Amino acid sequence: MPVTTISWSDEKIRIIDQTQLPLNLVYFDIADVPTLCEAIVKLRVRGAPAIGIAAAFGVYLGIKETPEYLEKEKLFTVINTVVLTLKKTRPTAVNLAWALDQMLETAQNNSDKSPLEIKSALLVKALQMYEDDREINRRLAEHGASLIPQNAQIITHCNTGALATVDYGTALGSIFLAHSKGKKVHVWVDETRPLLQGARLNMWELQNEGVDCTLICDNTAAFVMQRNKIDLCIVGADRIAANGDTANKIGTFSLAVIAKYHNVPFYIAAPMSSFDQSLASGAEIPIEERSGDEVVQGFGQRIAPENSHVYSPAFDVTPNELITAIITDKGIIKPPFNQNILFAFSRI
Amino acid sequence: MPVTTISWSDEKIRIIDQTQLPLNLVYFDIADVPTLCEAIVKLRVRGAPAIGIAAAFGVYLGIKETPEYLEKEKLFTVINTVVLTLKKTRPTAVNLAWALDQMLETAQNNSDKSPLEIKSALLVKALQMYEDDREINRRLAEHGASLIPQNAQIITHCNTGALATVDYGTALGSIFLAHSKGKKVHVWVDETRPLLQGARLNMWELQNEGVDCTLICDNTAAFVMQRNKIDLCIVGADRIAANGDTANKIGTFSLAVIAKYHNVPFYIAAPMSSFDQSLASGAEIPIEERSGDEVVQGFGQRIAPENSHVYSPAFDVTPNELITAIITDKGIIKPPFNQNILFAFSRI
Repeated sequence: MPVTTISWSDEKIRIIDQTQLPLNLVYFDIADVPTLCEAIVKLRVRGAPAIGIAAAFGVYLGIKETPEYLEKEKLFTVINTVVLTLKKTRPTAVNLAWALDQMLETAQNNSDKSPLEIKSALLVKALQMYEDDREINRRLAEHGASLIPQNAQIITHCNTGALATVDYGTALGSIFLAHSKGKKVHVWVDETRPLLQGARLNMWELQNEGVDCTLICDNTAAFVMQRNKIDLCIVGADRIAANGDTANKIGTFSLAVIAKYHNVPFYIAAPMSSFDQSLASGAEIPIEERSGDEVVQGFGQRIAPENSHVYSPAFDVTPNELITAIITDKGIIKPPFNQNILFAFSRI
Repeated sequence: MPVTTISWSDEKIRIIDQTQLPLNLVYFDIADVPTLCEAIVKLRVRGAPAIGIAAAFGVYLGIKETPEYLEKEKLFTVINTVVLTLKKTRPTAVNLAWALDQMLETAQNNSDKSPLEIKSALLVKALQMYEDDREINRRLAEHGASLIPQNAQIITHCNTGALATVDYGTALGSIFLAHSKGKKVHVWVDETRPLLQGARLNMWELQNEGVDCTLICDNTAAFVMQRNKIDLCIVGADRIAANGDTANKIGTFSLAVIAKYHNVPFYIAAPMSSFDQSLASGAEIPIEERSGDEVVQGFGQRIAPENSHVYSPAFDVTPNELITAIITDKGIIKPPFNQNILFAFSRI
């Protein structure tokens, strides 16, 4: 069974601390907003869908202790502050903002109710989004698995499995489903520098599921493709613009370019909540830049001289021309993306 | 001043132990063939030109203790054994085989002389090749520097500086020379997984020379190019086939594909000894595969689950269609490569 990355019990968010994997499987309880913010920033919980759901529970954590006698206006000030604080933790993945906006809307829709009822409505909404995420992943995986042929050689980048979602996953979820349907597949796993989500998390999940897999350095994917060993690429997304341009983990764009050179299909797998229709193109997507320390001293030993200047964007943007199709919970969206993404939303 | 990677004194090869950089600058003395083989296999000394020169001295080390009364035939058996042993240490870089063949030819050309004279001729030849390498690098760098414009943004992959040669370097040597001629340049340094020669060695050399540089993960190069920050790529070579297909450190081919996508010129910088005219194309170049341990536990901390299957080719092959020109000590070779490489050799 895929692992459960996030659960809600005893008024706490329980997560697997992903910074400890694969060496240790450690659960981490989150009972307040500052602890949640730290967990998101430090990537204890990560993956666009997972941080969205965690943040939804975070809104409830942020208001559950407010006194009953608090004026409604002040309660809403607290809610707004919590939402803004959580939104700032990571700028690129739109699912975070999307989930927080859903929570805000829920609060507003219940503004005529008592503070206790508003709190209750927010917890119900978070739990609903939690359950929805499972369902969304399963539907998405059905569409994704349909694109994976028997004996497929697949490459993926960064972690998009159960650990990146409530459970099951998007890109990796599609592979799990193909595997569980009896298709023989082999996965080439990009290690995904600098934080090695591929090596640490995908290898762990794929081994747990019994899927045949081989770890490679990110820079080795082109060589593997050149020797005709890859049938398709499938990766996740942190934000998809209205034209299909897709922000995802740094290295995705590079993989898309080499896939195009080798005529290998390149699929994005993401829930509809990863689309940001307010942005015309990927050029407008904010790209999080992280500390160079994650590059130069992430392995336990410093790998570059002191005072080295390091540039470490956490994401890149793959232009729509390199994307074969986008696999969503509402079906498979093909080019022309502008038109077909709009059409997919019209059916929601 | 560039560092001196290899020197010969007191009947020993003295190298900088490159596995210790950038944290410690440690010299390592080599007095016999087994120690040299270990140093080459473990990459204490590395870089195609550098291992060629080290191996040349290694032939002398392998025979210098043979007794004066040894029959000539037996001396040649020892020489042949040493040459074969050293050739096997690393299969991809042709400079190693090239240097050893030069030594063998020297022995054969002196076969009518006494064992003492043969030994002496071999040491003289190794010292000559050592001096030639300095000169070759300087000439190559002159040609390379001519291609680097003022205010150039340059990307490079793996180490090709003084540490990869006797001194100065090839691709990095061209950058050093442009810098010393007063051109303002900025170098984007691919960290070069798995063994991080970019992070460990290029950053160290570039900082020592006062050249402005920024370290990135290999998978970030495409994003930097997309944002129009790169004017040219320049990398080294371990073996160049008759048609210009070039084997170099794993990740080079990937960089060449993304350079092509962004219309960024892609230059190879290598001495004429890196050409292997006996191979029609890159498909025939043997690619060294190294232990997966270098990927998963290279830097102090395991990064993937136990029993992970890892694929770690040390080199890849960039097809000639992606190469703008090959910078050599004999000048700049442009397409069509088959014809122009042949022409360059005809002038030697």
